[in-house]
Amino acid sequence: MKHTIFGESHGPAIGVTLSGVPAGIELDMDEIAFELSRRAPGKGPLSTARKEADVPEILSGMFEGQTTGTPLCAVIRNTDQHSKDYSKLQYLPRPGHADYTGFLRYDGYNDYRGGGHFSGRLTAPLVFAGAVAKQILAREGIAIGAHIRSIADVEDLPLENAGEPLSRALLRQVAEKPFPVLDDGRGEAMQQAILQAKAEKDSVGGIIECAVLGLPPGVGAPDYGENVEGVFAQHLFAVPAVKGVAFGAGFGMASMRGSECNDPIRIARGNIYTLGNVNGGVNGGITNGMPVVFSVAIRPTPSIAQEQDTIDLEKMENAKLTIEGRHDPCICHRAVPVIEAAAALATCELLGI
Amino acid sequence: MKHTIFGESHGPAIGVTLSGVPAGIELDMDEIAFELSRRAPGKGPLSTARKEADVPEILSGMFEGQTTGTPLCAVIRNTDQHSKDYSKLQYLPRPGHADYTGFLRYDGYNDYRGGGHFSGRLTAPLVFAGAVAKQILAREGIAIGAHIRSIADVEDLPLENAGEPLSRALLRQVAEKPFPVLDDGRGEAMQQAILQAKAEKDSVGGIIECAVLGLPPGVGAPDYGENVEGVFAQHLFAVPAVKGVAFGAGFGMASMRGSECNDPIRIARGNIYTLGNVNGGVNGGITNGMPVVFSVAIRPTPSIAQEQDTIDLEKMENAKLTIEGRHDPCICHRAVPVIEAAAALATCELLGI
Amino acid sequence: MKHTIFGESHGPAIGVTLSGVPAGIELDMDEIAFELSRRAPGKGPLSTARKEADVPEILSGMFEGQTTGTPLCAVIRNTDQHSKDYSKLQYLPRPGHADYTGFLRYDGYNDYRGGGHFSGRLTAPLVFAGAVAKQILAREGIAIGAHIRSIADVEDLPLENAGEPLSRALLRQVAEKPFPVLDDGRGEAMQQAILQAKAEKDSVGGIIECAVLGLPPGVGAPDYGENVEGVFAQHLFAVPAVKGVAFGAGFGMASMRGSECNDPIRIARGNIYTLGNVNGGVNGGITNGMPVVFSVAIRPTPSIAQEQDTIDLEKMENAKLTIEGRHDPCICHRAVPVIEAAAALATCELLGI
Amino acid sequence: MKHTIFGESHGPAIGVTLSGVPAGIELDMDEIAFELSRRAPGKGPLSTARKEADVPEILSGMFEGQTTGTPLCAVIRNTDQHSKDYSKLQYLPRPGHADYTGFLRYDGYNDYRGGGHFSGRLTAPLVFAGAVAKQILAREGIAIGAHIRSIADVEDLPLENAGEPLSRALLRQVAEKPFPVLDDGRGEAMQQAILQAKAEKDSVGGIIECAVLGLPPGVGAPDYGENVEGVFAQHLFAVPAVKGVAFGAGFGMASMRGSECNDPIRIARGNIYTLGNVNGGVNGGITNGMPVVFSVAIRPTPSIAQEQDTIDLEKMENAKLTIEGRHDPCICHRAVPVIEAAAALATCELLGI
Repeated sequence: MKHTIFGESHGPAIGVTLSGVPAGIELDMDEIAFELSRRAPGKGPLSTARKEADVPEILSGMFEGQTTGTPLCAVIRNTDQHSKDYSKLQYLPRPGHADYTGFLRYDGYNDYRGGGHFSGRLTAPLVFAGAVAKQILAREGIAIGAHIRSIADVEDLPLENAGEPLSRALLRQVAEKPFPVLDDGRGEAMQQAILQAKAEKDSVGGIIECAVLGLPPGVGAPDYGENVEGVFAQHLFAVPAVKGVAFGAGFGMASMRGSECNDPIRIARGNIYTLGNVNGGVNGGITNGMPVVFSVAIRPTPSIAQEQDTIDLEKMENAKLTIEGRHDPCICHRAVPVIEAAAALATCELLGI
Repeated sequence: MKHTIFGESHGPAIGVTLSGVPAGIELDMDEIAFELSRRAPGKGPLSTARKEADVPEILSGMFEGQTTGTPLCAVIRNTDQHSKDYSKLQYLPRPGHADYTGFLRYDGYNDYRGGGHFSGRLTAPLVFAGAVAKQILAREGIAIGAHIRSIADVEDLPLENAGEPLSRALLRQVAEKPFPVLDDGRGEAMQQAILQAKAEKDSVGGIIECAVLGLPPGVGAPDYGENVEGVFAQHLFAVPAVKGVAFGAGFGMASMRGSECNDPIRIARGNIYTLGNVNGGVNGGITNGMPVVFSVAIRPTPSIAQEQDTIDLEKMENAKLTIEGRHDPCICHRAVPVIEAAAALATCELLGI
Repeated sequence: MKHTIFGESHGPAIGVTLSGVPAGIELDMDEIAFELSRRAPGKGPLSTARKEADVPEILSGMFEGQTTGTPLCAVIRNTDQHSKDYSKLQYLPRPGHADYTGFLRYDGYNDYRGGGHFSGRLTAPLVFAGAVAKQILAREGIAIGAHIRSIADVEDLPLENAGEPLSRALLRQVAEKPFPVLDDGRGEAMQQAILQAKAEKDSVGGIIECAVLGLPPGVGAPDYGENVEGVFAQHLFAVPAVKGVAFGAGFGMASMRGSECNDPIRIARGNIYTLGNVNGGVNGGITNGMPVVFSVAIRPTPSIAQEQDTIDLEKMENAKLTIEGRHDPCICHRAVPVIEAAAALATCELLGI
Repeated sequence: MKHTIFGESHGPAIGVTLSGVPAGIELDMDEIAFELSRRAPGKGPLSTARKEADVPEILSGMFEGQTTGTPLCAVIRNTDQHSKDYSKLQYLPRPGHADYTGFLRYDGYNDYRGGGHFSGRLTAPLVFAGAVAKQILAREGIAIGAHIRSIADVEDLPLENAGEPLSRALLRQVAEKPFPVLDDGRGEAMQQAILQAKAEKDSVGGIIECAVLGLPPGVGAPDYGENVEGVFAQHLFAVPAVKGVAFGAGFGMASMRGSECNDPIRIARGNIYTLGNVNGGVNGGITNGMPVVFSVAIRPTPSIAQEQDTIDLEKMENAKLTIEGRHDPCICHRAVPVIEAAAALATCELLGI
């Protein structure tokens, strides 16, 4: 299954083309709508005020409610565009954003309005694609769920402490929360930290932790292009704002001992498992049958209301920029289903789906 | 340029096939030998006692000292094999290692001796390929260098504090050190930590930080398969023992504010740059002209001398394992040129070389 | 540049997603419409009576009339659908068509109406993609043109006899003809042969010959995946009804002598060329600077009005089929711009565009 | 399974790296030797006098006689090199050969000795790879066999007349013949034609026809990169001297009627088949369960003993060339196992092996 995401924030439409979809999948459109709603903007003081129905139209690859196996194209029309808000950004790149690099990469021909193809809005078709992937994976007994592991300095419980063994029911329960954390009290504290940053015309970042349950052991390979971590990372770094990807204890393993990192291998009633999952379900680039658990670092939203130093690309001189318009002081909660979507696509790739 | 690494630790040979090498590169074989020597085992008490000359023979793709542009294959014969040390591992997988996952993935047909294709020895042809890539990149004005950022809890200086701006001379100077750190005093402390772990029949992990200097701005794209971070990560996770990859401040950005993470854009004498490099030289998956700086988490060597819990795959019952043979209590110092090699191959891929 | 063609003949829309389009191409929409009109049905007694406006809507990747460099998606809505004509084909596969193989490949979930994704209608987005590719190639001085080399037993002049050297003006002149041949008298005879077949409730095939002018020498490589012939063939065989691809004298070389097939190499005023072009502009998988000339075999339209033997896939028994609906007795003239489009995409791939 | 063929005719070695080989294949080395012997030079007056043992050494990916599933590298050392024969070719490209295009493509750095990487000798590792592929396919019940369909103007029987249905035993019987044709009388006439051409300091071409038996129906897809014909063609055009590829009746379909080309679909005792196989086992890019039958055009050997017109690339002026050394007046009989090898690799690709 290969996907190509297309569209610009303020163009006619955004969408995705998916080829290699298995035939005969009866797509649950309500479930797709649920996933899109988790990512949707416009919920409360935490998010941008932009409202979009985000109802995808499937143009191809479906017949009588089931996938045909031929390429599926889904589009979401753009409707709520305030293009004038962005006009001054054409030559004043926002620090931390892709305005400057997009200008360079595309020789100034990129659609700069609202970030264009770099806009977070492009994660909507990614969530659509991920929702399709999740439904395919569900038939293989695979479930994917994520939560906010931390925002600013507030930490949620780690997944390994979320109950043993990690259950699909719990992941689903978190997915249905408006603020997807394991411990709602800590979630409250995270939201306070976000509002505090917003009040200070600033933004905050965080960490999202995700688990893939039911991936069979023996998937992947050590080699370039085939190892589990590399395939996941390729998909995850394509999500805007992701600056780090780590498996199991990840960077924490750097200050651990081998004796702490070698999950003991055990067998009980014919089932092989490990005590603990420090390695995040992967050894030597291959799944070991434990949940694949990884974390991604999400940078703070670059669009902040403070005056910032930048340059004027037309005049080629230093300049000041104060961004107007609507922006999220934190995108972590909206990014949770996006990370799950990327993980679902990575899982399909690893399984040869 | 595409590479395929082949070989097993105790098979006839290891090597690499490189296709797409530009024609007319006069390979500096001394420089290749230098890179291989940085990775080579057998230096002092920190490393395994296995000694290999590791002299690659180039079978194709070279003519009169220059690359022909057609596929280049280089092989390194295996000579110093102690296969009997490993025989008992056939059915007793080492915890934390790929023995169990390799057994599953390859239906028990994998060459288990010395880790087979999963052995750290396979990083020798990767270093060879990286050395070729570095020589190609040098013609484009690109230099790559890494150092040990931390081992156990001992931290080296970060690259951003290593002198301003980051110089090729400094990176080369670090590369030539037997223990590649910026601050040798801290390097001493790291080596003490390693020896301490070894004395306790244990091993330690660490973090390697790497910089790519001279990559032009505007390289990469936001999309899957093309973004700078994803391409680097795909190469880096293919290095054994890498469990995390992060760019710039990486996971640290999770607890930072947007105002701290938006490197201000400035212009001076026509040159555009950023004040600070929190984003590691990449915005929106595209290079911004600053050094591309990333960190990788290296897990502690799984082969430790303590008795460990595992299973017997033949009898399908719980078992105890005490590993004999020669093993590194830490691989970070030897992994430094390997990470550079992976970065060099990633850079070539991004540049369409 | 990569393309994914999507859609079904009787679904909501057909279209194409193009990624890797260079930024800053000012697309000439009239030229795109011209290419689509060359392929369009509904012209006189030779073609199906189905009429479609075939006006593509560009959903992304364009801004202020120029390509942005980010993925371009174009869709053509389906409007003139007579689905009931095809309903009985669900279980009665048409001999020579993909009904049976599509049913197998997609487990019966394929959209069988009007051939679904296998319909010749899907060549409209291919022509769109090719028209974009041609405009990009024109900036590099490359022109592509084809003609009908034969239909039934009637032969047009070969391109090598079309005037020396082969000119862009001539290729354009042929493209603008309603029936694209070099010699209109022979074209008349071909049309008679088509009408004769139609009168006999039958169809005819033919050969299309195509030339790529201006491809620089030294493009391609001998190796799998990189050789000029292989890259062209991969694109050409993806066009429905193509059953053979040959370069230069092609299958005719099988009964020639080496002395006839070795185009002598000559130099005049610093320009290197060959006397004759038996090799079709390619030696060892690499262009030699002469026009790349190839032929494709087009099979007769499988949909004919005669009663045919087939099976009933529901009842699993032998059956008779008489196809109703509208069908082309020959598709060669409409296939000419499709072959050019495939050639344009192949040329872009070879040039790394 | 991916392969990279490396080496130059007069370099240290030639070989192939195969990744993605299934684990646990017990390679029959005698069968591999048999395939290599079919391609080997040095048999009688028809071939070049160069003799090479062509014994491959497997460097990796094998353990205790079975494939490990990790990359397999096999090398064949070059021993019988007469490099001085070729020295004058450095600046005098042979017409019809890749000397000139290789010089351009690789900026003059290509190894020109004996054709370097373009040499027919490079088909030895391709035959090795194909022999591995055939053994994998045999486990799936798939057999591949080819014969010389024509040389000069002498035609062998077509496969469709070779007995009904086409049997594996017959294909094997042909493979074991020193001159692989169905009708040995016609084979004698072909050899006369070859010797006649040789006596006249010339060479001849031919057509090879190949069948793949046992490919299940429903393999492939209509889309670019996935259709059966395109995948085969990509592999076949990578074989030196191939100038055309056609399926079933191929270019002959251009002068046939639809009623002749629509193989009637029939069912008998639950088995679905077609009467006749004009489409070569493929409809709409997907297999229909009949043998996949295709033909390739082989150009006459470009190295002939006559004086030829060429240029001097050093002096940049017209020149005369008389080639010395040993050359085949026809390569068709030696190319038969090479075509089978390419077909075997294509079949593996289509089956996702």
